[in-house]
Amino acid sequence: MPTPAPAAPLAPAHPAAPPDPAAFGRAHNFTAGPGALPLDVLLELRDEIPAYGGLGATIFEVSHRSDAYDAIDASAKRLLRELLGAGEEWHVLFLQGGATMQFHQVPLNFLRADASADYLNTGVWSAKAIEEARRFGRVNVAASSEDAAFSYIPDPAAWTLDANAAYLHYTSNNTIFGTEFHATPHAEVPLVCDASSDFLSRPLVLAPHGLVYAGAQKNLGPAGVTVVLVRESFLATRKPDVPPILDYGRHTGELFNTPPVFAVYLVEKVLRWLVRQGGVGAMDAAADRKSRALYDRIDRTDFYRGTVRPASRSRMNVCFRLPTETLEARFVRESEAAGLIGLKGHRLVGGLRASLYNAVPEASVAALVAFMDGFEAQHG
Amino acid sequence: MPTPAPAAPLAPAHPAAPPDPAAFGRAHNFTAGPGALPLDVLLELRDEIPAYGGLGATIFEVSHRSDAYDAIDASAKRLLRELLGAGEEWHVLFLQGGATMQFHQVPLNFLRADASADYLNTGVWSAKAIEEARRFGRVNVAASSEDAAFSYIPDPAAWTLDANAAYLHYTSNNTIFGTEFHATPHAEVPLVCDASSDFLSRPLVLAPHGLVYAGAQKNLGPAGVTVVLVRESFLATRKPDVPPILDYGRHTGELFNTPPVFAVYLVEKVLRWLVRQGGVGAMDAAADRKSRALYDRIDRTDFYRGTVRPASRSRMNVCFRLPTETLEARFVRESEAAGLIGLKGHRLVGGLRASLYNAVPEASVAALVAFMDGFEAQHG
Repeated sequence: MPTPAPAAPLAPAHPAAPPDPAAFGRAHNFTAGPGALPLDVLLELRDEIPAYGGLGATIFEVSHRSDAYDAIDASAKRLLRELLGAGEEWHVLFLQGGATMQFHQVPLNFLRADASADYLNTGVWSAKAIEEARRFGRVNVAASSEDAAFSYIPDPAAWTLDANAAYLHYTSNNTIFGTEFHATPHAEVPLVCDASSDFLSRPLVLAPHGLVYAGAQKNLGPAGVTVVLVRESFLATRKPDVPPILDYGRHTGELFNTPPVFAVYLVEKVLRWLVRQGGVGAMDAAADRKSRALYDRIDRTDFYRGTVRPASRSRMNVCFRLPTETLEARFVRESEAAGLIGLKGHRLVGGLRASLYNAVPEASVAALVAFMDGFEAQHG
Repeated sequence: MPTPAPAAPLAPAHPAAPPDPAAFGRAHNFTAGPGALPLDVLLELRDEIPAYGGLGATIFEVSHRSDAYDAIDASAKRLLRELLGAGEEWHVLFLQGGATMQFHQVPLNFLRADASADYLNTGVWSAKAIEEARRFGRVNVAASSEDAAFSYIPDPAAWTLDANAAYLHYTSNNTIFGTEFHATPHAEVPLVCDASSDFLSRPLVLAPHGLVYAGAQKNLGPAGVTVVLVRESFLATRKPDVPPILDYGRHTGELFNTPPVFAVYLVEKVLRWLVRQGGVGAMDAAADRKSRALYDRIDRTDFYRGTVRPASRSRMNVCFRLPTETLEARFVRESEAAGLIGLKGHRLVGGLRASLYNAVPEASVAALVAFMDGFEAQHG
């Protein structure tokens, strides 16, 4: 069996007209995460099981130092750079442990015991990041929306920033509460962004950032890999003697240890799909259309009620309530029966939540709006 | 779309006669890891893409707190308990970061600054574990085979054990050098075992252990998940105030954060496959037969030469040399062309290495032995 030519499997297996999801038993998937993946990507995956190209095995049964996997790893990193416009000063890493590990790893690397870091508290995940950072140094919570159940992004004019902070950490989109930063924060210090739930749904203004991380399982791939972008000049400010497995600097060169091969492999497919769709700009425009269609439907009558202040509404996670909890439970039940899954809201907010990640087709949003019309006609 | 009935997809989709690997483009896969998976498992996986049962999505596109994933997580943990005979005093965890993260996490949890731990140094991975433990407390290297290029397991009679050690850490099988412990170490303190490369290839004597960990990518599944078995009484000895994501105690109850869903899902399939094969006892007998066939072939003439002292030979990773490096390179090239992949030895040992994990069929070993016969006839 000859050495595989990775070029062949990397070519899109299903480049033509988009397949019909229903014909493949696919529902309209609004799950908050792990979320929907493009059907194209899944069909390409299926074609490569139980053998990838001429490899004689799937890609997740061979060495992570093989030429075949190396081509995938390199392709994924190159595509991420291209999609985000990240130059050579940026390292692209595929790590494990999700955003929760990053809550630990960021201050472990960058927050010295005698220093301070700024954090914006906009929800459950920000709060967890803050709690973890407090183990390492001082934390200045520069702003918080906890006073109103995290239903808004605090006004930058009121942030109490520290010009000497090691960094300013923020969560660009808040999955649970459905809020999102619509502008990149301004600060005199490097930004660190948890972009897990809106990564690649819009252009990322990289310049003010030192580090950006994103768990893959919303917009990027399956759970099990976290993308980290870290700028060389920021990396250089890290503490000495960080344990190797958690030291960002140990992951910038050749693979430090066995990566989550399958997850990276699927991320690479999603990135190629994203390029075929037109890149981040196309995702941005689609996110606008999808979220506007849904918020317009919510706002049209008083039957549905958005839980977030309009200026802070997320394009990724649309949270709304119905007149009664009984009706909400019924909505969940009947929407599921109608082939719309994952709409139950987080227990902290209640009600409904529709997640509109990149892989959720506009047709799914149209189906949801139609269902909402029908549900209101029946119960409103 | 109704709530999925996980019972259906959990039933083996291909329970009958084993499929013919070659008909599916499968080579004989001797890769050291990530290694071969059972073809049965891969066909079952393929059948569940792009929709799992009546779910309307794959299992890696829905919440890790859904009933469907919960059933898989529970099934995997139950099967592991059954296969290993682990009672209620054992916690079963699915973590991320591979064995390398465990090198850090074990002493972070269990080695106090004023205490000491015993380590047996039997190769590269042991050495990395030792290096990491030294960050936390004293390390007593109770034995080492570094003096002879890690070609043997040190004789227990010469180990300098410390009765006050927090634990004794050992690597049950050494992937790179091809050595394996054939008996469970004796110590007065709890054992901590890195079982990554021979996990479930034989019964595990759990009683003397406090903790056992295994990266999945050899005998258990794809890279991206690490199984940790930790005994409640040992867990109770851990340090206070370990960062939550790295605190074993925070992972014993409901899911602490998003797990590597796909990897656990595939592990669950491998465990059901293992039960269908007859369990750990059957794997043990097969490992005996497979490794004996290969070592017998190596020992039959002087053309092939095993690199490990016979008493310490691994049943999982069989390392051998040929008369010249030129012949070794030729062996790698020609075996690959003949459909035998992954035989190149690790650069530290050179030569050839055949990994005979659970999913490597006996027919693959027979094919390798036949190839070796032919190669010697031609070049010997």
